[in-house]
Amino acid sequence: MIDPTFPKSFASDNHAGVHPAIFEAMAAANHGDAPAYGGDTWTSTFERQTKEVFGAQAEGFAVLNGAGANMVGLALMLGRYDAIICADTAHIATHETGATERLLGVKLITVPTPDGKLRPTDITDQVARLGSHHEPQPRAVSISQVTELGTCYSPAEITELAEAAHTAGMRLHMDGARLANAAAHLDCSLDAITTAAGVDVFSFGGTKNGALAAEAVVVLDPSLTQAVPFLRRQSLQLASKMRFVSAQLSALLTDDLWHRNASHANAMATRLADGIADAPGISLAYPVQSNAVFAVVPAAIAATLQSRYLFHHWDEAAGIVRWMTAFDTTPAHVDDFLDAIHKAATS
Amino acid sequence: MIDPTFPKSFASDNHAGVHPAIFEAMAAANHGDAPAYGGDTWTSTFERQTKEVFGAQAEGFAVLNGAGANMVGLALMLGRYDAIICADTAHIATHETGATERLLGVKLITVPTPDGKLRPTDITDQVARLGSHHEPQPRAVSISQVTELGTCYSPAEITELAEAAHTAGMRLHMDGARLANAAAHLDCSLDAITTAAGVDVFSFGGTKNGALAAEAVVVLDPSLTQAVPFLRRQSLQLASKMRFVSAQLSALLTDDLWHRNASHANAMATRLADGIADAPGISLAYPVQSNAVFAVVPAAIAATLQSRYLFHHWDEAAGIVRWMTAFDTTPAHVDDFLDAIHKAATS
Amino acid sequence: MIDPTFPKSFASDNHAGVHPAIFEAMAAANHGDAPAYGGDTWTSTFERQTKEVFGAQAEGFAVLNGAGANMVGLALMLGRYDAIICADTAHIATHETGATERLLGVKLITVPTPDGKLRPTDITDQVARLGSHHEPQPRAVSISQVTELGTCYSPAEITELAEAAHTAGMRLHMDGARLANAAAHLDCSLDAITTAAGVDVFSFGGTKNGALAAEAVVVLDPSLTQAVPFLRRQSLQLASKMRFVSAQLSALLTDDLWHRNASHANAMATRLADGIADAPGISLAYPVQSNAVFAVVPAAIAATLQSRYLFHHWDEAAGIVRWMTAFDTTPAHVDDFLDAIHKAATS
Amino acid sequence: MIDPTFPKSFASDNHAGVHPAIFEAMAAANHGDAPAYGGDTWTSTFERQTKEVFGAQAEGFAVLNGAGANMVGLALMLGRYDAIICADTAHIATHETGATERLLGVKLITVPTPDGKLRPTDITDQVARLGSHHEPQPRAVSISQVTELGTCYSPAEITELAEAAHTAGMRLHMDGARLANAAAHLDCSLDAITTAAGVDVFSFGGTKNGALAAEAVVVLDPSLTQAVPFLRRQSLQLASKMRFVSAQLSALLTDDLWHRNASHANAMATRLADGIADAPGISLAYPVQSNAVFAVVPAAIAATLQSRYLFHHWDEAAGIVRWMTAFDTTPAHVDDFLDAIHKAATS
Repeated sequence: MIDPTFPKSFASDNHAGVHPAIFEAMAAANHGDAPAYGGDTWTSTFERQTKEVFGAQAEGFAVLNGAGANMVGLALMLGRYDAIICADTAHIATHETGATERLLGVKLITVPTPDGKLRPTDITDQVARLGSHHEPQPRAVSISQVTELGTCYSPAEITELAEAAHTAGMRLHMDGARLANAAAHLDCSLDAITTAAGVDVFSFGGTKNGALAAEAVVVLDPSLTQAVPFLRRQSLQLASKMRFVSAQLSALLTDDLWHRNASHANAMATRLADGIADAPGISLAYPVQSNAVFAVVPAAIAATLQSRYLFHHWDEAAGIVRWMTAFDTTPAHVDDFLDAIHKAATS
Repeated sequence: MIDPTFPKSFASDNHAGVHPAIFEAMAAANHGDAPAYGGDTWTSTFERQTKEVFGAQAEGFAVLNGAGANMVGLALMLGRYDAIICADTAHIATHETGATERLLGVKLITVPTPDGKLRPTDITDQVARLGSHHEPQPRAVSISQVTELGTCYSPAEITELAEAAHTAGMRLHMDGARLANAAAHLDCSLDAITTAAGVDVFSFGGTKNGALAAEAVVVLDPSLTQAVPFLRRQSLQLASKMRFVSAQLSALLTDDLWHRNASHANAMATRLADGIADAPGISLAYPVQSNAVFAVVPAAIAATLQSRYLFHHWDEAAGIVRWMTAFDTTPAHVDDFLDAIHKAATS
Repeated sequence: MIDPTFPKSFASDNHAGVHPAIFEAMAAANHGDAPAYGGDTWTSTFERQTKEVFGAQAEGFAVLNGAGANMVGLALMLGRYDAIICADTAHIATHETGATERLLGVKLITVPTPDGKLRPTDITDQVARLGSHHEPQPRAVSISQVTELGTCYSPAEITELAEAAHTAGMRLHMDGARLANAAAHLDCSLDAITTAAGVDVFSFGGTKNGALAAEAVVVLDPSLTQAVPFLRRQSLQLASKMRFVSAQLSALLTDDLWHRNASHANAMATRLADGIADAPGISLAYPVQSNAVFAVVPAAIAATLQSRYLFHHWDEAAGIVRWMTAFDTTPAHVDDFLDAIHKAATS
Repeated sequence: MIDPTFPKSFASDNHAGVHPAIFEAMAAANHGDAPAYGGDTWTSTFERQTKEVFGAQAEGFAVLNGAGANMVGLALMLGRYDAIICADTAHIATHETGATERLLGVKLITVPTPDGKLRPTDITDQVARLGSHHEPQPRAVSISQVTELGTCYSPAEITELAEAAHTAGMRLHMDGARLANAAAHLDCSLDAITTAAGVDVFSFGGTKNGALAAEAVVVLDPSLTQAVPFLRRQSLQLASKMRFVSAQLSALLTDDLWHRNASHANAMATRLADGIADAPGISLAYPVQSNAVFAVVPAAIAATLQSRYLFHHWDEAAGIVRWMTAFDTTPAHVDDFLDAIHKAATS
């Protein structure tokens, strides 16, 4: 019989299940009636916690998945002839089946980067478009924290981007599907890389950090709040039995579960990265700053490993693979995988 | 302290929680890793069960909510200049924040009906639009089973609509958010009101029948199947940890849980309807054919009841209220409410 | 050989050609270079004339056709989850191939009317939707002046609608494809039924009044002006050689050509309506208040007439036909047609 | 008084007016009535000429501008989750205010090129996306002939692209706003770079080649024809008095006026390019293969010239300017400009 816990999947943090504390929070919410669509006490608890963590002006809205959180958050900032500046590796540009273009109807201005991270000049370079009626108007800058390459923006870097965006009359959006991993890696508060850094709207991911299906859109610009319920409903992101979504988010914000899960996953990625330092022919493609290890691995070695372990090629031509860890990855999982890597690399 | 189980909410079947068997199925799925996005065994089980229940050509796709199921299902049938014929009471026309227009970009041709049910002539009346390039082309007919007025189409009525639609070069879509309640009321199989009746695509609702958040898009026309994964992903309806959505649907399809939940809820609605038969000043607005009771209730009586019981006005001008029952509504809940109704009606 | 001038088409005012003065204005503009996209002197002349006719705050933007003018004008007023209230006979609802739904992504809330004209209660009836996140938010009211049934709103009626819309937080849009005919019929200034009446944005039609292809979007609410060039360009309504479009509009606004053309066409419709007063079996379906005559005509008579004359059935079931006159319809054209009508009616 | 003919604008071929033969064709069409929306004889003449020039399967549809022709043509090929492969300089990607994203809802996959021209590998590189439901599906390849950099595809290059596209299950679209200039430069028939080369749908531009406002969408794949009238109407590209648009296109296709205008404009560009060959500090940025000259010009020289002559910077950072000639550019215009260039370059 197959043991679903061994060997561990390194393909994605969403191959993991649900953290017991989050599952229990859902079970505790399953008692009798509750008003639908957010009129329940779990939702109001989550909304209160959002303000405690992200500041008094923060308004949290529970949604169903990360792409949904991005679409709702970006829709708040964008009119019919606007555009988004983002890295060409951004999830919204590469892995959401064109949802930005179809659901929002706006253009993505994608910028190449060495590490998945925008620089302030990537914003100022686009300012010349403003005012030309032949061109869509860049009105939002979207960054991912953690980026799709596993790297993190420092609080200072985000602050600089926010200033550049605001100076140009644009807003700053953050795809925070792995925001917890970033805060854990940077050893800072969630507030330090969102509210304090000048972000206008961001998503706070739960699913990749131990939830079943729960993300939040957090709005820091009060002028944008009023539209969220309408856009969430229209964008198919409103859960009728919302108590169960809010309960997940609330559990993550209780007793810093978000931090424990994320820092554990990060530590497992570091353990993995450290363990391959002396593996012949294998090297890191990007610095390890979260729960992702991007490694350059010879094709034959990758093939040997994939016969037993689940993981994805990131860039097959460049020989880069991506190994993800999760809240439930154990040192034993990592060491087992490292053994296999070393064997494959030296055989 | 407030007892969340008493008095029971009659506002909506989504005020109820999750049926224990469904919750347990999710818990059982929470063991170790599973491939994301549907590559798991719970999903393949659900797909197999879909075929068992709806026939070999039926392909089931798990999604997150009813509006999402409708948008994905309808998108399959509609090009850029097409239109949908539906009753003017249809959920897609009234309660999805214009998602049909914004996400699909198509017109809804809304037809007044006495009971929420389309007739074949409602289809043939629109045939004259076909071919005129000044008008959107009606290419889909969307019916709700159960309708938004709590009524049901008989298998014969659906068959007639399917024939009228197909003759006119249109496809038949069914919003089956409460399909289980319809089959239970009609005392027929799910197949009898879908596959056997000529429906092309329908949704099969789980959430209102005891699930946490789980609906299915079921495609019966094989030419439409290939597009579903793309449209589901783009429409923000793809769960990464899909095993937990599939487990809910699978639980509903196991040992006829869907039928037990639905027939119980229906019975509670009938008990409620029977109980008000002799309440002075109160009458049924529509026949009770599911888990909904639409009643004409004098405003003062409604106000008295709403001071203690949760329910919605359906048409305030006409004095019509809607009372919904759920899988967890008990005879005691109903009798308690009936007592209150009779007291209010006779005081 | 067929004489294209006799018998005259009564099918549409766009079966007519271009008024000589307008054609000459285009010819006069065809001299040497001019900056593209509106940087030419014909366009600045048109812009100045717009202010002279409609008031200092009026900003005119030349576009290519009536549907384009409607889409640009309405887009100014509507966000992603908004809706438009209009008569169910409105051109935007019936004859633009669902452009409103696809290009703007918004819902049309269509209201039945006896005469193609909205009443203030049609606006106040929709106010209850505001604030409900399950429903699209009505933010624009769109009326047609002349209506699609040939009737006109009085200045007072428009003022009342504007007040009702503004009180409800909505804006008032006017489809003025035949605005000139309305002003001529009402014997008032163009200003009296637009700026002075509280309209926010309207279209001013040229094509049906003797132009080749020229309409204007006129914006009276200064907060909406900035977006027009972007929406016009994106909506495919920007002419590169705009001088030729502006020259047409300018010609119409010079020496009241708009009024001469429209009042002549109206007079021809009145002559036609008067002439059928005693035709047996034929009656007017709506009052004649512009260049349209809607008549109830027995099918056999209509068929006889259509063997020689071009015109459309408006409502075949109700036996209603539409006869349009144009700037170049002559009394002889009308009398010829009247002869034929009387012969057909009495034979 | 300003002489609008001297100095000539080199800013754009749409600064020119209308060729006399085309203007006369419109005047000739302005006689009496004609059915609207294409039911006229000028339109049927244009349709016949389209077949004569582009082959029996070619169906021509008159539209109002180039962006409109592109949107209608591309809409034919693309479903809701599809994408377009194009050069990152493509007009649809850079200068249509995001119309592709908003009106079609599809993603543009933009490829950097040295000369504005796609290669077959630009198509095959994208094939890996096909089948992944996280990514939009590239189903159309769009090339511009002439490109936005003034270069031309040879018939063989187009044939290769068509084969690569078709092999990958994609269709080939051509933005032919300056198709006439390409055929004139290549000294080949229009057919050789469209029908014979395997293009599926293309636009044939009139406006930049002496028309007032007239472009055609030409469909060579018969399975796509049926949808055009609906998409043209919905996309706001249907002229009611279509005879005047068709008359322009017909005039261009009569006695090879398209070729005379284009080859003249091309010759003027060549004269200009030849004339600057020995201007110190000035060089060509791209080969001159049409009516565009892209030149690297020191900023001070450009500034001096712009004080008297109209032209645009193409890439200000790179010091590249764009000089366009038109059907009405004369040798004297060019020589006058060359004098000024030489004076500015040597002072």
